[in-house]
Amino acid sequence: MHVSTYCGWILIIVTISFASPTKPSTGCGYTACNLGDPTKLNVHIVSHTHDDVGWLKTIDQYYYGSRNNIQHAGVQYILDSVIRALDENADRRFIYVEIAFFWRWWNEQTDAMRNKVREFVNDGRLEFISGGWCMNDEAATHYNSIIDQHSLGAEFLRDQFGECGRPKIGWQVDPFGHSRDQGSLLAQMGFDGLFQGRVDYQDWQTRNRTKTMEMVWKTSTNLGNQSWLFTAILRDEYSPPDGLCFDDSCSDPPIMDDPRLHDYNVPERVQAFIQASRDQAAGYATNHIISPMGADFHYENANEWFKNLDKLIKYVNLEQANGSNVNTFYSTPSCYLYALNKAGRTWTTKTDDFFPYADRPHGFWTGYFTSRPALKLYERHSNNILQITRQLNAFSNSQLRDSIFVLSEAMGVVQHHDAVSGTEKQEVAFDYAQRLSVGIDNAIRVINKAFDKLLPKDTQPAPGPQFLCQVTNISECLPIQDQTRFTLTLWNPTVHPVLQHYRVPVTRSYTVRDPTGQPILSELIPVSNATKKIPGRTSTAGNQLIFRANLPALGFNTYLFEAKTTEENQEPKVKITQNAECILENQNIRVEIDAQGNLQHIVNLRKSVDVSFSSQGFYWYQGFAGNNSHPEFQASGAYVFRPLTQTAEPVSQTRTVTCIKALSVQIAVIIFNDWASQEISLYDEAQHVEVEWTIGPIPVNDNIGKEIIIRYDTDIQSQAKYYTDANGREVLERIRDYRPTWNYTILEPVSGNYYPINSRIWIKDQNRQFTVLTDRSEGGASLHDGSVEIMLHRRLLYDDDLGVSEALNESAFGEGLVVRGRHSLVVDASATSARIHRVSAQNMYMHPLAVYSLTQQTFANYSAAYRLTWSALTDVLPLNVHLLTLDQLGSKDYLIRVEHYFEMNEDDTYSHPVTIDLQSILKSIGTITNTVELTLGGNLPLAELQRLNWVTSDKESSHATDHKEPSLNDTSVRLTPMQIRTFQVTVA
Amino acid sequence: MHVSTYCGWILIIVTISFASPTKPSTGCGYTACNLGDPTKLNVHIVSHTHDDVGWLKTIDQYYYGSRNNIQHAGVQYILDSVIRALDENADRRFIYVEIAFFWRWWNEQTDAMRNKVREFVNDGRLEFISGGWCMNDEAATHYNSIIDQHSLGAEFLRDQFGECGRPKIGWQVDPFGHSRDQGSLLAQMGFDGLFQGRVDYQDWQTRNRTKTMEMVWKTSTNLGNQSWLFTAILRDEYSPPDGLCFDDSCSDPPIMDDPRLHDYNVPERVQAFIQASRDQAAGYATNHIISPMGADFHYENANEWFKNLDKLIKYVNLEQANGSNVNTFYSTPSCYLYALNKAGRTWTTKTDDFFPYADRPHGFWTGYFTSRPALKLYERHSNNILQITRQLNAFSNSQLRDSIFVLSEAMGVVQHHDAVSGTEKQEVAFDYAQRLSVGIDNAIRVINKAFDKLLPKDTQPAPGPQFLCQVTNISECLPIQDQTRFTLTLWNPTVHPVLQHYRVPVTRSYTVRDPTGQPILSELIPVSNATKKIPGRTSTAGNQLIFRANLPALGFNTYLFEAKTTEENQEPKVKITQNAECILENQNIRVEIDAQGNLQHIVNLRKSVDVSFSSQGFYWYQGFAGNNSHPEFQASGAYVFRPLTQTAEPVSQTRTVTCIKALSVQIAVIIFNDWASQEISLYDEAQHVEVEWTIGPIPVNDNIGKEIIIRYDTDIQSQAKYYTDANGREVLERIRDYRPTWNYTILEPVSGNYYPINSRIWIKDQNRQFTVLTDRSEGGASLHDGSVEIMLHRRLLYDDDLGVSEALNESAFGEGLVVRGRHSLVVDASATSARIHRVSAQNMYMHPLAVYSLTQQTFANYSAAYRLTWSALTDVLPLNVHLLTLDQLGSKDYLIRVEHYFEMNEDDTYSHPVTIDLQSILKSIGTITNTVELTLGGNLPLAELQRLNWVTSDKESSHATDHKEPSLNDTSVRLTPMQIRTFQVTVA
Repeated sequence: MHVSTYCGWILIIVTISFASPTKPSTGCGYTACNLGDPTKLNVHIVSHTHDDVGWLKTIDQYYYGSRNNIQHAGVQYILDSVIRALDENADRRFIYVEIAFFWRWWNEQTDAMRNKVREFVNDGRLEFISGGWCMNDEAATHYNSIIDQHSLGAEFLRDQFGECGRPKIGWQVDPFGHSRDQGSLLAQMGFDGLFQGRVDYQDWQTRNRTKTMEMVWKTSTNLGNQSWLFTAILRDEYSPPDGLCFDDSCSDPPIMDDPRLHDYNVPERVQAFIQASRDQAAGYATNHIISPMGADFHYENANEWFKNLDKLIKYVNLEQANGSNVNTFYSTPSCYLYALNKAGRTWTTKTDDFFPYADRPHGFWTGYFTSRPALKLYERHSNNILQITRQLNAFSNSQLRDSIFVLSEAMGVVQHHDAVSGTEKQEVAFDYAQRLSVGIDNAIRVINKAFDKLLPKDTQPAPGPQFLCQVTNISECLPIQDQTRFTLTLWNPTVHPVLQHYRVPVTRSYTVRDPTGQPILSELIPVSNATKKIPGRTSTAGNQLIFRANLPALGFNTYLFEAKTTEENQEPKVKITQNAECILENQNIRVEIDAQGNLQHIVNLRKSVDVSFSSQGFYWYQGFAGNNSHPEFQASGAYVFRPLTQTAEPVSQTRTVTCIKALSVQIAVIIFNDWASQEISLYDEAQHVEVEWTIGPIPVNDNIGKEIIIRYDTDIQSQAKYYTDANGREVLERIRDYRPTWNYTILEPVSGNYYPINSRIWIKDQNRQFTVLTDRSEGGASLHDGSVEIMLHRRLLYDDDLGVSEALNESAFGEGLVVRGRHSLVVDASATSARIHRVSAQNMYMHPLAVYSLTQQTFANYSAAYRLTWSALTDVLPLNVHLLTLDQLGSKDYLIRVEHYFEMNEDDTYSHPVTIDLQSILKSIGTITNTVELTLGGNLPLAELQRLNWVTSDKESSHATDHKEPSLNDTSVRLTPMQIRTFQVTVA
Repeated sequence: MHVSTYCGWILIIVTISFASPTKPSTGCGYTACNLGDPTKLNVHIVSHTHDDVGWLKTIDQYYYGSRNNIQHAGVQYILDSVIRALDENADRRFIYVEIAFFWRWWNEQTDAMRNKVREFVNDGRLEFISGGWCMNDEAATHYNSIIDQHSLGAEFLRDQFGECGRPKIGWQVDPFGHSRDQGSLLAQMGFDGLFQGRVDYQDWQTRNRTKTMEMVWKTSTNLGNQSWLFTAILRDEYSPPDGLCFDDSCSDPPIMDDPRLHDYNVPERVQAFIQASRDQAAGYATNHIISPMGADFHYENANEWFKNLDKLIKYVNLEQANGSNVNTFYSTPSCYLYALNKAGRTWTTKTDDFFPYADRPHGFWTGYFTSRPALKLYERHSNNILQITRQLNAFSNSQLRDSIFVLSEAMGVVQHHDAVSGTEKQEVAFDYAQRLSVGIDNAIRVINKAFDKLLPKDTQPAPGPQFLCQVTNISECLPIQDQTRFTLTLWNPTVHPVLQHYRVPVTRSYTVRDPTGQPILSELIPVSNATKKIPGRTSTAGNQLIFRANLPALGFNTYLFEAKTTEENQEPKVKITQNAECILENQNIRVEIDAQGNLQHIVNLRKSVDVSFSSQGFYWYQGFAGNNSHPEFQASGAYVFRPLTQTAEPVSQTRTVTCIKALSVQIAVIIFNDWASQEISLYDEAQHVEVEWTIGPIPVNDNIGKEIIIRYDTDIQSQAKYYTDANGREVLERIRDYRPTWNYTILEPVSGNYYPINSRIWIKDQNRQFTVLTDRSEGGASLHDGSVEIMLHRRLLYDDDLGVSEALNESAFGEGLVVRGRHSLVVDASATSARIHRVSAQNMYMHPLAVYSLTQQTFANYSAAYRLTWSALTDVLPLNVHLLTLDQLGSKDYLIRVEHYFEMNEDDTYSHPVTIDLQSILKSIGTITNTVELTLGGNLPLAELQRLNWVTSDKESSHATDHKEPSLNDTSVRLTPMQIRTFQVTVA
């Protein structure tokens, strides 16, 4: 489809005022809740549908209800029929969650229908719960994108429904385990509570037995009680009680209440509900319980659910006349939560997270931490482009937010818990990638419009088109291949200058000039054979030209490439040796690799920290080939990681090593076999070691599914502890074979110790810390003291019977999928590692964007017409501050998120609060005339936020209102460790 | 359930006026039809649902949508959602057919909803088509019950919706072949046309090729052009075009018309519809085609169908701007028919019927003619009780029509084409039987109330309760067992006196007194061993007491039974011989059976007609055990009769014969084996021979399914011809291996020659006719000249893959089902046979009802208190007149149907028109003050009927209006052969 057709998509996302389009009635919000009967067991019936934003079908197939042969699901009909059903009985309530679908539906509605829906929202009959674009995954997502996807939904709801449409309750009922940062972010969005569906079965049993299914979750070690979130675990994921499903997809007996017909069954149905309610109540703390009535894509024919629920409620309550203590009514998660809040009791607390998730013995859902690693990287890559496009749009005042929406929307979709998680069908994975690709195509147009404004000096015409080379990771950039002259412009999205070595795949030699016009050092590094044989690579580039870019903060440099004539073609000599000892060393680090290709030491020369490796390299687990008929036969699949044995085997007995030494980089290319290799690079001046791994196609012609890890076995005395981040933010301590809140029975020694790694994992001892940073989300563990293993790629031949009904084979990619990625290894003292890994991780996920352009001009001509360097900043911003979001909302309005991205106590310098001036960031745009601090989701002035207060069993109060930052008097912003602050600013 | 709960059922069926409850708008009827564009191909989209009144689930399970694991279907939701969908777009149209469901739904609706529905009916947006209680089977049904089931629906519709609700169009889209009498009855109900879904595939192909899918069907050889019915055969049963099903049960692509989303498919969808329309039009005669959009239980979520049809219609018609000639719109069968009528063209005619039906080679649906023979008899038995109960209710002025409704309703349900047809699942067959049983229980209460009025003289108290003995066919009547005194009252429902031998199972001897007090001849006949071993029989009765009852017309006799003392116990001698020649002979007939039990001759002594039998007895076909994957592998099943070989094998090589000679009857008991026997009885003065056959349990422990026939191989030179009735009325000539309207390719020499036998089959030659009358519907054929075979019972081990998904094994009945039935054999001259078989058949389906009562009174005392005989008639009515219906509608109003039940030219005397006086029938009730002749369905004064006129290709006109009978000036009614006339009469 031609991209112009996407322009209609953004009709909705335009309003920026906080005024509600319809005056809210008094009918929404907590005050309108039915709080039941204090003398009875109150069963809050919550009618809901769980609409996966893609899984077995694509989001649009789900929306339209096409390809029902794959799965019967049509969201357009769900929303059609729910609105009809709400119209028929004012008692009925419904919640809706996934705005990606609701937005599609809303686009197709008449004004009359929209007004009717607004009425229902204002009356509390339709309530948006969670209200993100999707119900995001928690294990494979980055906080930047979680915030974005929630904000996208929240903005739509605010614009269309005002305050009554503002979500206050998290509803993460399907994600496969729960990250602490998800809770923290929701708390920062002003949410009053969170419902979860899936927690480890041992955890569930313990909590149910002790009536601690609901708790105050302390979601941050840095943010204090503003990050506390009341968290409730549902009875049975998000399903109705057994035998009481009235969806048209179910076969449970409906309420047959005409006594004249055969099969009259009211007494049996009433007793079934009463019994289920009592059974549930036995595991919960109060005389209120929540009963979700709905499941995946339910309510396609809402009448069936509601008609039977109407009857059920009527007859169950009539039974009170016979002494029943069960009182039931239509409710919402908000109202249930409010009833608990009003119960005037205290709640236990929890400080760890809900990973990993096992639904049964041997069923650890730790495979999806890594599943579909290519999609997982593409998602990060797309976010990088999205954030930079927003910055460019803002600094160029291009006002092309509508065009950026295509990528925002795609990113919102891909955060779904069956998207970036890798647990979707192959065809759907392709669709997600296509969405991102189309979004990037739109973003490139914005980027071009922006550079058309930012590059030309004075009245100069726009330069030639800028283009991306998105597969330079396999040394391919066809548009510049064989060109004699081109420019490479690098935009640094961070607020600090960065030094970056950049590689350009070339077929010839070039002189590279920096913005001053000086030729700078550039060296040709041969493209490895491992790269050359990657399927799909068509480039003839035999070398990568490597050079160092010193980029300004929040700005760009342009480098001009001029092909060398033959006589000029005198490259600095690159020394290459084969299968000899290979020592990589720069000012900071020495990496020692022996002649057999074994990594033996990494030494931090400045800190005198030496970590030695007993082994390092690639290993594989054999995926369990079960039929899933019993927990013992649980297969390893897209969700579940279950190795056949608990020992990973090396992918090869020997390896070859090629040692490449240039001035700007020293590289050891280590080939394990024809589908596994790594390049260990140490750049000049670098403080970390880069490992580029290449895995695939994983061979399965032996009919054995394989899960490939990289493992670092060090001499660090890690004492069973390891540390992994949550969504790229705070880091949690993990202890091998241990759970902080229950007596853990070990059934899967490997898989049960895996945790999500979104950005980093480390182990440490008293003086030394070994940190691995990842370019995407992966799963990993430390199964032995000193050891860190990270799963990189998975190819499996059995489905794990959790719904996707496909083996994670990725066989659509010819012989299988080749995946390449990067780790950064940081060897440092424990006390000073954060300074390296925090900055490196931030630069890794938000790295400079390279755009190329062909030109015929000499440097002199080009530099006369175009700026070669530019920075939005004139002030130096502190190293611990990150510009998370810069989004132009309207001609004068901008949304800015700034954050302190160090945790408390991890760095002597950078773990302290810091103050910055927002004006520094917007100086090039204009003078800030007004600043409104918003909740993290951007949908409510923080001053207006009132969260419910919860009291813990040790009598602490969440005192939510105490934590509101005062309104700004000026533009200076103080940030405490890990704090994110969100502002809408108006610029003169 | 206690029966009193049924009393609510009849809320609706009370109004008897013809005034419409809501004033019809001008929006219903033909004049409101969209007749399309004469320059285009007009595609009439007909949204419909086909709701089986029981099949895989019971009617109430279908209604409520329970047991969806068996089949997803919930009619309550269909009607809910269709009404909603009609409300959303005034262009939409829907038809509804099965009033058994609609009535259930209507009972549950509010007045507001009812008024909305009435509006839709008045606006022509909702149209009742066919409007019977069900879509009745045509092969296994009796005309009495077809009329009743249509009348039941028609009455409901008239009362609730008035003229706009009156069905005008038949919609027999699923029955498995079509009887000519069904067409005739619909014509007599005032219908303008009939749509059929299933005709033989060779017939369909021929008609489609010659564009004669639509025709004028001359449905009667007796009734002239008032019985002509325009008949249309649908494209593909009643399904939507391939790939264009938008029900939520389908997986065809919906119309995805938002070009912003992936999978936009409007052009493809439009072309698919246009192509399907052109393909269909190629087989039809005009530029109008009808496109049914719906199927079994479709529209449970009507929005899905309608939303997509709205879009389809819009985009298909938009395509006219690009030159498309396809014009499509929502329509109804009525409007389509009216468009054809307005086309001003002529139509071919057809005079035969549409039996048998084959859907593919080897797939002859002739098994269901016999399937579930027990249910087929129970249905007849129930009708017998129903008609008599109505008579008793009327003559006693009990005004208990509401109670009778339970049985009327059950009978309406059981006429369904998967009910009496025997093609339902076993559990559903049980449900049908239970419904009839409950209906009969209610009828018995009415019968008691009636006899409480009719029996006592003057101010005497009511007699003791009357009860039925419904299993006297296996010589069991437990309530009278061992009693010393009881009464037996026999009600004769015909308008002629009958002479009937009656058998009472007894454990002792009784003196039987007729109404005059005279002891009459009674003889004890031993109960056969075949009877004694029938599973479930618990009676200890060892004898049947046989006596002759001479019953008055339309009235009753009571017989008092007094147990004999031992010394009185001198029974007339019954002579019994074993395995000797057995000659049964009375005043009219001699039956010759040899010592080996072979029937050799039946001689009509008065007519000197001797039919000799080369063989007679039971044979079996081996049911084909196929997997149905290909026509060659078609299995024999509930629907399809497909024998493995074309030769039936005898069930035994030898047989035993016991010859019993009493004064009132002579019997040959012939045992073939332990599961097959017959009793050939010749009663004193009888003009026919009775054969009581007993079959079962059919052994299948050899893993062979068996289909049991009885065969009569005579010396009649039948010249390939045989004659079978249609629904108990007119008889059609059949010619072996021949079809009247197409060049027939023979693939199944046996099964393809089977036809339904609802009451009789005969063969004849110049002077002799051999007629077999049946007590229920069966399938039969004459496969060789002189031979008549009738299938009696079937037990099969394979499903025939036509949906029921159960083998017709009836294994729920322990070792299998034993079935017993009766045939009457008439041997007579061809010219005088009708006088016997017409009268006998009428007496067979409407035989006297026996009710018993215990008493302690002597005859003297009893006769002082109670009437022992009574007749409604004082006049003698002609033999060729039958009182088909007598139903008290209100305190003064009665519905009467009288019929001439002889065909033209079949009897010198009785084939002439006849005139009777309705007053004769109602004399005991009062004086008729007003008479309104109605259409056959009883829902419209005949004077108001206007049928569409059709012109045949030989320029005959149906001239429907010419055939209306003039309004009566008095109560005398003239009846022509086979004419049924329906009246509402008011009595002073």
